[in-house]
Order: sequence, then C-alpha cells, then structure tokens
Amino acid sequence: MPGDSDRLRGLLGTDQYQLAMAQVYWKEGLAGRHAQFDYFFRRYPDYGTHQAGYCITAGMGWLLEWMESVRIEEADIELLASQETATGSKRFDSGFLHWLLANGDLSAIRIDAVPEGRVVHPNEPMAIIRGPLAMTQILETCLLNRLNYPTLIATKAARVEDAARGASVLEFGMRRGPHSGVHAGGRAALIGGADFTSNVALSHAVGLDPKGTHAHSMVQAFIALGSTELDAFRKFASLYPDECILLVDTIDMLGSGVPNAIKVFEELRADGHEPAGIRLDSGDLAYLTIQAAAMLDDAGFEKVSIVLSSDLDELVIWQILSQLESEAPRYGLDPKTLVRRVTFGVGTRLITSHGDPALGGVYKLVAIDDGTGTWKPAIKISESIEKMPVPGEKTLFRAYDHRGLATADIIAVAGEEPTEQDSFELFHPHRETHRTVRTEDLSASESLLENVFADGLRRDGEPDLEILRKRRRGDLDRLDRGVRRLVNPHIYHVSLTRRMKDLQLGLIEEFGS
Amino acid sequence: MPGDSDRLRGLLGTDQYQLAMAQVYWKEGLAGRHAQFDYFFRRYPDYGTHQAGYCITAGMGWLLEWMESVRIEEADIELLASQETATGSKRFDSGFLHWLLANGDLSAIRIDAVPEGRVVHPNEPMAIIRGPLAMTQILETCLLNRLNYPTLIATKAARVEDAARGASVLEFGMRRGPHSGVHAGGRAALIGGADFTSNVALSHAVGLDPKGTHAHSMVQAFIALGSTELDAFRKFASLYPDECILLVDTIDMLGSGVPNAIKVFEELRADGHEPAGIRLDSGDLAYLTIQAAAMLDDAGFEKVSIVLSSDLDELVIWQILSQLESEAPRYGLDPKTLVRRVTFGVGTRLITSHGDPALGGVYKLVAIDDGTGTWKPAIKISESIEKMPVPGEKTLFRAYDHRGLATADIIAVAGEEPTEQDSFELFHPHRETHRTVRTEDLSASESLLENVFADGLRRDGEPDLEILRKRRRGDLDRLDRGVRRLVNPHIYHVSLTRRMKDLQLGLIEEFGS
Repeated sequence: MPGDSDRLRGLLGTDQYQLAMAQVYWKEGLAGRHAQFDYFFRRYPDYGTHQAGYCITAGMGWLLEWMESVRIEEADIELLASQETATGSKRFDSGFLHWLLANGDLSAIRIDAVPEGRVVHPNEPMAIIRGPLAMTQILETCLLNRLNYPTLIATKAARVEDAARGASVLEFGMRRGPHSGVHAGGRAALIGGADFTSNVALSHAVGLDPKGTHAHSMVQAFIALGSTELDAFRKFASLYPDECILLVDTIDMLGSGVPNAIKVFEELRADGHEPAGIRLDSGDLAYLTIQAAAMLDDAGFEKVSIVLSSDLDELVIWQILSQLESEAPRYGLDPKTLVRRVTFGVGTRLITSHGDPALGGVYKLVAIDDGTGTWKPAIKISESIEKMPVPGEKTLFRAYDHRGLATADIIAVAGEEPTEQDSFELFHPHRETHRTVRTEDLSASESLLENVFADGLRRDGEPDLEILRKRRRGDLDRLDRGVRRLVNPHIYHVSLTRRMKDLQLGLIEEFGS
Repeated sequence: MPGDSDRLRGLLGTDQYQLAMAQVYWKEGLAGRHAQFDYFFRRYPDYGTHQAGYCITAGMGWLLEWMESVRIEEADIELLASQETATGSKRFDSGFLHWLLANGDLSAIRIDAVPEGRVVHPNEPMAIIRGPLAMTQILETCLLNRLNYPTLIATKAARVEDAARGASVLEFGMRRGPHSGVHAGGRAALIGGADFTSNVALSHAVGLDPKGTHAHSMVQAFIALGSTELDAFRKFASLYPDECILLVDTIDMLGSGVPNAIKVFEELRADGHEPAGIRLDSGDLAYLTIQAAAMLDDAGFEKVSIVLSSDLDELVIWQILSQLESEAPRYGLDPKTLVRRVTFGVGTRLITSHGDPALGGVYKLVAIDDGTGTWKPAIKISESIEKMPVPGEKTLFRAYDHRGLATADIIAVAGEEPTEQDSFELFHPHRETHRTVRTEDLSASESLLENVFADGLRRDGEPDLEILRKRRRGDLDRLDRGVRRLVNPHIYHVSLTRRMKDLQLGLIEEFGS
C-alpha cells in the first residue's frame, strides 16, 4: 500500500457515497443530466484569540491541472467491480461500470471561479461547477480536498505577511505539515504571503530560490568531534560566503553564538564578502533580537539580517514587532531600522493553520437541468437557516466605494446587473435585513467569476506565482484596514440582490415545512 | 507546477538547509561519517480542553516503502546545479553534486524503531536513525514529514475510538483534510481506531470495504426535478437493498426524513431485505438519536443503526453517549441497546487533529562516529533544559507491573539491561528526581526498538492493517485507564537509567556554559 501511488491520486480519491449516488443517477437516467454545484464556505477561520476577516483563494491551479489529466481508468473499474455487499452481491452493476469507464472524465464539466489568489468572503460562490450529475458528484470530494486546505493556508499566510509589516516571511513548515499535503500547503503559503519556502522541490516547481540556513546538528556534529561552534561557523561561511546566515543558539546565544558569528563575519568581510544574517530559534525572541542587534551594530554589521523562527504566527510576530518598536530606543537602536532587518521563518503554525486547522468549504447542489434545458433551483431546508445555500444560477459582483475600497460582494441572479440602476437593495444572505445602495456612491464594480475550466482544459491562463501574488496584493490593498485587522475584524458585506432574495424566500416557502 | 509530480515526491522534498549542510560535510570529508539521530516528541498533543496521555506511532510503513525506492536522480542534480547565490556563483560545487549523485540513496541508513501502531510517550526514541551524515541529514525533513502527521492522526483516532465505547467509527474527513496528505492521514486513522474510511482509493489500498451513505444533494436533486424525498429514498434503496442507509435531515428529520425512511424500510422488508440504518448530519444529535430510535423501534426496526456525523470528536462523542445513556430510560429505551446501535462518522476534527494540529516530533543528532568506529555522544545545550535530547546510543524498554499494565518506559545506555538487577533507579529525563524500582514488582519487560530498515530494504515484515491494529489494541489494553483518560490523563513515566542520567549530566558539565 504505497503512500502516494497513482491510484490514490486518481478519481477514486473520492468518497464512496459519490459513487453510490452516481450509480443511482445512472439507474434513473440522470447520470448525464447537467447540475450546478456551488463551492463556498460559511464562516471565516476563527483562531480562537483572533479571527480572519477575509480569505485568499488558493489551490485552483493544481486542481485544474489534475482535472485535465485524470479519468476513470480500467484499473479503477476493476477495483469497483470487486466491491461486494454484506450478502455477497456485486455493489456496482456492470452496466454502470461500463457507463463510468466510457464517461468517466471531466471534459463535460465547466468551472467558473473567483480566480486563484483573490480575496473571498463567506456564502459567496468561490467556484460554480456545472456538468453531468454523476461526474460533478464524484468530483466533489476531490475538489474540496484540493481547494479547502490551500485556501486555509493562503489565508493564514496573508495574515502573517500583514503582521510582518514588510519584513520577509519564509515558509519553514514541511517537517510538521501534513505528509504530501505540505507541497500544496507550501504553494498556498507562497501565494498568500510567504516570500520563499525551505521546500527545495516546491521552490524549483514554482520558480523560486529555496531558502535555508543550517541546523543545530551541524554545530553539534563539529563539537562532538572535538571541534567548536566557531569552527563550524567558519566551515559554513567558507562555502557560502555571500549568503552566510549563522544559527547562533546551539550553546549560548549571547555568550557564544553571536560573538562567534561576529568573528566569522569579520573574517568574511576581510575576505571581501558581506555576511547575510544570524538566526535565532529559541528563547525570548524580542529581547534577544535587540541584544543581538546591538552587538552586531557595535561590530559594524548594521545590515546583517536577523532571522527569527520558533512557533511563530501572526500574533507572535505582531507582538515581537511591537516590542521591538517600543524597546529599541532604550538600547540606543532605531526602531524602524531594527524592524526592517528582521526576517520571519514561519513553520508549524502556518502549514497547519494553528487555531483553526480546517476551512469548512462545501459544495452544494443549487440547480439542476429539468431535462428540457431549463435550470431548476435546488435548496436544502435544514434545521439551520445559516446552512442554507443561495439557490440557482448566479453571478457575483464586487462593488468599490469612492476611496477605491471594496464595499460589498453582491450575489445576483444570472443575467442581473444591479449597478445599472440608480439604486438597489442588498439583503443579508440569511436574514431579511436589507439596506439600499445608491449607485452614485460606488466608484466601480466588477464581476468576480471567470471561466477557468471547460472542454477538458484549464482556461485560467495558467498564471504563474507572481501573477497570483499580484492579485492577492491588489485585493488586499483595496480591502478596508478594519476588515484586515488581525483581531475582531470588521464584518465585510456579502449581500443578495432583491431578485436573489425573492428566489431564496420563494423556495423556502415552496419546500419548507 | 504539478500538485503531485514525481519531483515533489523525491528526495528534494526536503529543506534546503539539509543540502547546504550536506555540502559542508562533503567539503570537510564528513559526508560519509556515520551519525545517529533520534526521532522523538517532547509533549503529547494538547487539545486545549483535553489532552492526550499517549501517542500511537503511524506512518512508518509508507515511509519505509518510499525509502526503498527513492534516490537522488539526474533531474534532481540538474535542479541543484541551477541554484545560484545572489552574486551569481553556483551554490553547489560540481564535486559535491557528483558525490550526491553517486551516494544519494538511503541504502547505508539503518532505522531501529518502535513498530508502527504501538503506544509511545514523550522524550523516548520512536526511531533511531544511523547512517552517513549527509544522507541522514537530507532524510530528516522527509522522515519528520512522513511520521509526525500520521502519528498525530492515529493518536486522535485512538481517542475517538476510546470515546465511542465499542461503537463503529468511520473516517469521513477527506474533503476537509490537507490535500494529498489525507491518504496518509486516513491510513493513520485506520491504524489508530477508525474501523473504515469513506476514501475509496485508500480503502482499496489497505484492503477495506469503503463506507458511505448518500448526500443531501441526492434528495435535493430529486426534489428539484419535481419528485420527493420518499422517492429519492426508494431509488437508493432499490439499488442497495441489503446495505441501505438513508440520510434523513435534508428537509425535516423527525417530520419527514425518519417517517419516509421507515416507509422505505417496510418496503425493503416486505421484499425480503433488512435495512441497515439512517444517518443524522445536523442538529442536536443526542436528542434526535433518541427520537429517531423511538420511532424506528415503534416501527419494528430495532436493529437499524443510527449513523451520526457533523463535527464530531472524542469529547462530542463522549458527551453524546453520556446523554444517550442517561436520557434513554425517560423515553422507554434501553440505554445499552441504544448506545450499541450508534455509529460515528468522524471527519474534519479527526483528519486535522482539531485542537492541536501538529505533532512536534524532532530528529536530533545524538551521536557521531569519531572516525575510528567509536561513537561520540552529541548534545545541544540550549536555554531550555526541557529541549535537551537524551544523548548517545541507547535502548528503550517497557516495564509491566503485576497487573500486566505498562508502568514505565526506560531509556538505557546501549547494552545495558537494568531489569537484570534486583532493583534499579529511574530518573526523570529533565530533572534530577528519581525513584527506585524493585525488579520483583515487575511482571515483564520488553525491548521496544526493532530494526525496520537496513541495506536499502524495509525489515518491518510489511505488516498489514490488521497487524497494526492488533498492536495498538494490545498496547492500549495494557495501558492504565488513568493514562487513557480523555481529559487530564495521568502522566506516564518515561525514565532514564542511572548510567544514562550520568552520561547526560556529564555532557552538560563538559559543554555547558
């Protein structure tokens, strides 16, 4: 049972019930009937002591690439044919399996989505998936698995980047991250806010230079063999004279590590090289940063950077930078200069989204072709009005105010253009409260959904990492600071138009108990 | 940039600093020098309101399988050769890359480990890795990435299984889990306590029947097309008459879902089939379980199971079962019978280890060959005594008392057999407190470490899932109930022998500041 075999990466990497339902649809002649599913989440990540006020979409690029190539294979059919019920009968009819082998690709599926790297909010369709009922159903688990976790990590990374106030952020989480999922998580971190990653294979895959320093073990190895920390530093520096970052806390940071690093830096400089930095991986990082910075300054290494690591997240970074700013003057250091020389290596808490380790993204049936080409809206009347999806075919707009800031995301019935009127009403997705918006108070509006997959091919233009990062920065620049706040953010408006609200209420009346 | 390409699965799926250090070792003639690293964690998962008192090892099988086949490839060398420093020079010397291509496999590495599926505790070596310094260093990130997350999930699963008091546990987490990491997480859940998973590909890979029911979308689709919940149930039941589990909360659980399910169950029975169950996925699960059970009993379906899902974890399950037991009599239901018919579908909170999403497993250099075949212990004198690994070559024993329960795990110097004496002293790993154990108070002791990898081949006997589960059950049966307690567990003793303590203190004296 291999950990990452081809079979695990195929279309059978889905939930069993998708196949059980697909067979029902096949039996009822509905397998090829077109359906629409919306992908959305219901609430922002809540990290306990702090909360997100936005999310950053991620994962779509790799999902689409996978969708282009994947299909139900003969080997998959053999596995399904081997499944038996408790009474010994075959679970899947050979007729269904023939259908599945013939129709088991994703070429009839179309996806319109908010492009990867953009800001998104609860209850709005981040992706709209249309296609044959059986295959859209089988795709459900695969899609959720490939979008939820990356979006969660990109969101965390954006918060970390925000907290870091322009300081460089390095993704270091591979060792604590979720097995082979770390690659998608690392890529999401790079989209969301990390500048680089230590993951070598991923760095090469996305065209970045992999980053790293050295470990305690290197210093320990030299010491155990009768040598010294100073000698270990020298050996490392001699190989990496122009990018030498030394880890200074193997023995005693201020008593041994920093003084030895300074000695080696002086030797490097005498040799015509500029040292790059030191890394602190334990202890009171704010206090030690100040002490180390003062020692480096005294020795004439004002530009040497200080890389911090050790269970960092957005709140810890925020706290460290606040402390640096307020305490630097007491030690004769310029706060701005001090903050600028710091780099953050963020590991465990980024790659696992510490505090809230799952995005509750769902994939809900909202419409189905009635067999004549007319879409019928679908709805789930559950106990909780909060869990009710917005039904039917729809579009999604983002409206900007005269400051150029996003002011509301608007879910409208397909074809509707609310901003073409002088004013329009916006309704809360789950309550009947509403407000009126005057179009003259808006500076612009844009449609957020773009076709990203059709005819078996990705249509997203295969954006590279820089394009995705540009989207993220562009959207965050147009997001109110209150919404971006790390703790208790303002709630951003996601609203329905009157026509969409009427459709929703009509369905509740029709089908509700 | 593919999401799961071969390159991401290779040996470059490691941290950059491992390669940077490997080049230093190569340059210093130490790349082939044998070193010993210990893999261990420092504290149990702490879920906030509840805490683990043990962990279950998982991930080793897939790690070893990967280790057998992986090596540095030409394509990896090309990527590394392309890396340049900021000044434009090549980061890796061609001599080093030649060495790496020639020596870049794991055939010289030996791993002794606590076998997969067993109970383990903090500060004890779960795996001891010995081999050439450069390759053991490159392996570090790969190994941590492949063992930490599975061990975390197996541990959570064991707790869930414990809380479920014999009720069946199904792993349903794929959609919210971490991208391709869900397969390793799902396998770990199956080792740790889940009986089955909904993940089709994984089920086939480990030889289990995949489990599932149907989704709300199936009922919604039929309703949107003018049909009814009852009709949707009938269509589903007609295809799966002997394993029919109906999801009853799409519209109104007690008003529509359960009554419709009972109608279909009566039709199934009239046709000679026994219905299997209903599933509840929202609302007050304890209350609704009692109501649904009463309705099913009244209709003569006392054996139909009730599958519960919706953000379950060990505490929620514990609470639900406690409530079922205490309230069942008020509704004329037998508590034991009621509890026995429940099955738990556990998703998000299992696959993400909700509450503590990372195991802080580390891989620390503890000894190195001095070049003459003599091992030199290595130590890291950091600010925190708690972070100091146990140095040098070692063995690990587990001692059992006369009840047959594990009473202590003992870390001894290699070759030492403490239980051969009448009594021996045990020391806390990080404090100088100690106690004396009389060997006559023990019923047995066993060595926990076994050779699992050598000469490029796994030596663990390739145990199948049933063997791994048997190990887990065997170890949990021999663990004190207080240690297994879900909240505030007893602290299990992990101790050093006097000889190991003396070695540790001697090194601190020698190298400490």
